[in-house]
Amino acid sequence: MRHEDRFGPDVKIEDDVTIGEYTIIHPGTRIGRGSRIGAFCELGVVTDSATQKGLRIGPNALIRSHSVFYEGSTFGPNLRTGHRVTVRENTIAGDTLQIGTLSDIQGHCKIGDHVRLHSNVHIGQAATIGDFVFIFPYVVLTNDAAPPSDRLEGVTIGRYAVVATMSTILPGVTVGEGALVGAMTLVRENVSADTICVGVPGKMIGATSRITLKHNGQPAYPWRRHFHRGYPESMVAEWKREFAE
Amino acid sequence: MRHEDRFGPDVKIEDDVTIGEYTIIHPGTRIGRGSRIGAFCELGVVTDSATQKGLRIGPNALIRSHSVFYEGSTFGPNLRTGHRVTVRENTIAGDTLQIGTLSDIQGHCKIGDHVRLHSNVHIGQAATIGDFVFIFPYVVLTNDAAPPSDRLEGVTIGRYAVVATMSTILPGVTVGEGALVGAMTLVRENVSADTICVGVPGKMIGATSRITLKHNGQPAYPWRRHFHRGYPESMVAEWKREFAE
Amino acid sequence: MRHEDRFGPDVKIEDDVTIGEYTIIHPGTRIGRGSRIGAFCELGVVTDSATQKGLRIGPNALIRSHSVFYEGSTFGPNLRTGHRVTVRENTIAGDTLQIGTLSDIQGHCKIGDHVRLHSNVHIGQAATIGDFVFIFPYVVLTNDAAPPSDRLEGVTIGRYAVVATMSTILPGVTVGEGALVGAMTLVRENVSADTICVGVPGKMIGATSRITLKHNGQPAYPWRRHFHRGYPESMVAEWKREFAE
Repeated sequence: MRHEDRFGPDVKIEDDVTIGEYTIIHPGTRIGRGSRIGAFCELGVVTDSATQKGLRIGPNALIRSHSVFYEGSTFGPNLRTGHRVTVRENTIAGDTLQIGTLSDIQGHCKIGDHVRLHSNVHIGQAATIGDFVFIFPYVVLTNDAAPPSDRLEGVTIGRYAVVATMSTILPGVTVGEGALVGAMTLVRENVSADTICVGVPGKMIGATSRITLKHNGQPAYPWRRHFHRGYPESMVAEWKREFAE
Repeated sequence: MRHEDRFGPDVKIEDDVTIGEYTIIHPGTRIGRGSRIGAFCELGVVTDSATQKGLRIGPNALIRSHSVFYEGSTFGPNLRTGHRVTVRENTIAGDTLQIGTLSDIQGHCKIGDHVRLHSNVHIGQAATIGDFVFIFPYVVLTNDAAPPSDRLEGVTIGRYAVVATMSTILPGVTVGEGALVGAMTLVRENVSADTICVGVPGKMIGATSRITLKHNGQPAYPWRRHFHRGYPESMVAEWKREFAE
Repeated sequence: MRHEDRFGPDVKIEDDVTIGEYTIIHPGTRIGRGSRIGAFCELGVVTDSATQKGLRIGPNALIRSHSVFYEGSTFGPNLRTGHRVTVRENTIAGDTLQIGTLSDIQGHCKIGDHVRLHSNVHIGQAATIGDFVFIFPYVVLTNDAAPPSDRLEGVTIGRYAVVATMSTILPGVTVGEGALVGAMTLVRENVSADTICVGVPGKMIGATSRITLKHNGQPAYPWRRHFHRGYPESMVAEWKREFAE
């Protein structure tokens, strides 16, 4: 069956797109060329039928099964998700975003380029996530300083920063560029750039530059010195020049 | 297709109910008037075919896609869920329960009126949750003091209490009325009413009355002084009278 | 409809297997006799079509709805899962594995016999889990000591060990046989056999033998002294002999 017969004329699906069995696509959804959508998904869920805001998935996306995307969000090329991802309305994301299995983006947030969210990450509303950020499993970005209240204060994560497993970032906090939040950390105050924050409550314990890779003794941060998997060749070449000695 | 043709005569669906594509409804399920059920759900899963205990969903429910409800549970009016919610058997819940995306209610528990569970909350068996309780993402209510054992001791959360993100409540603990459990807290002992508990392990550090709202300096707790979103007008009017000066 | 008509000749389904509505089964999957597979599942997801590695589910499995299993994994008899389980490729598991709702096994790991993973457990790649291990909700086994890096160091959990709710095990750590990791513990260093580890960061605070069951004052550990639910009679008889006085 042709896509337009299956989903109706208000769904725009570019060339070379495959869509899994049983997947539901609502009017106003646009899916870029070369994308693969898994089974049992629901794309472009409408929350306000008066204004059709649509959902835009850039080219070469891979959305795995059982995922749900609402209308009003926009994704650059090369979006790649795990299974059972939820993305609510008004999420604006750049290129090559990865979203792991079970992760939940609550919407009304901005996400840069080449961001990698691992499994079961929860991005609260009003978050701002810079380019090249890594967020590991079971991390929560919160937004309500006196729950429940009507004032949302989003979290900001600077580019190249890394938030390790099971950490919680409290409302309004900024994690600086290149900072490292250790596993199971409760971040209550801003974290300076290129600084390690660990503990409950989180404390800044020094510069990321002091961490070395066990197998070769080289500096582990900035991670772009040594970690290149999945980035474009031109970008890796630039990083290599940046750290050439 | 009429509901009775789709689901058979042992499913009772009242007027003005919409049911999403592919959703499966088992015999013994009753869904109240005006409800909306999403796609890919499974309602009334039978665990013991000898005794048909049924599932009762009150009027005006909204159950989002990919959710699973077992038989033997009862929900008052205005149930509202996110996606991929799981509710096991023998959950008895009052009016206007909210259950966020991915939350998992293990069954054999009692939940009051106007309770709000955010995303990815885990309610262990034998829990008792009072009216107007808020539980935020990634909170777990446990029930086994010497895991694994055969003795379940459920958690009790008093009315108006708030449990913030990523906290764990140990078995048999009571969180008092109006108490506030801070983010990433391990609650090992009972928390007194209107008291703040934070840390790993959790410690009571003072009265909730000392917390103020940043934007206006007014008391943040009891939260019903200022937070009214989604409650009935008559209830809000009563709360306003309660705190009128 | 016969299974072979529904799923094609490259799917091998033994006798007395039931498969839920809408479930998708990919070529190379083999399901053992007497198994029950829920609705909305996807089994045998292919990641590399050049090499068909297949998926082998042993006899008497129970896989609940919305679960996803990749090719390249093998499960012994009596596998039992909750809903929305994810198991990636190259997971080798023994007999009678339980995997709770929402749990995510990232693949490339080894799991012994009679292991019980509760809800929302995350098993990172390269993990090794011994026989009779219990892992409770929201536990994460990590594998990257300097995230992001290309060196994975899996976690090892010794047999009979118990990891309680919301704990995180850091890369390369070994939790010894019969050890008990308390709730909300960050395990950074190896835990000795039959030892309790609690806190953030985790500290070894004594032998598990000092913990008693509240209702009868008997030792709580080794748990096989008193906890027998769901194990084969011959095994329980052996445990009873082991602890007879």
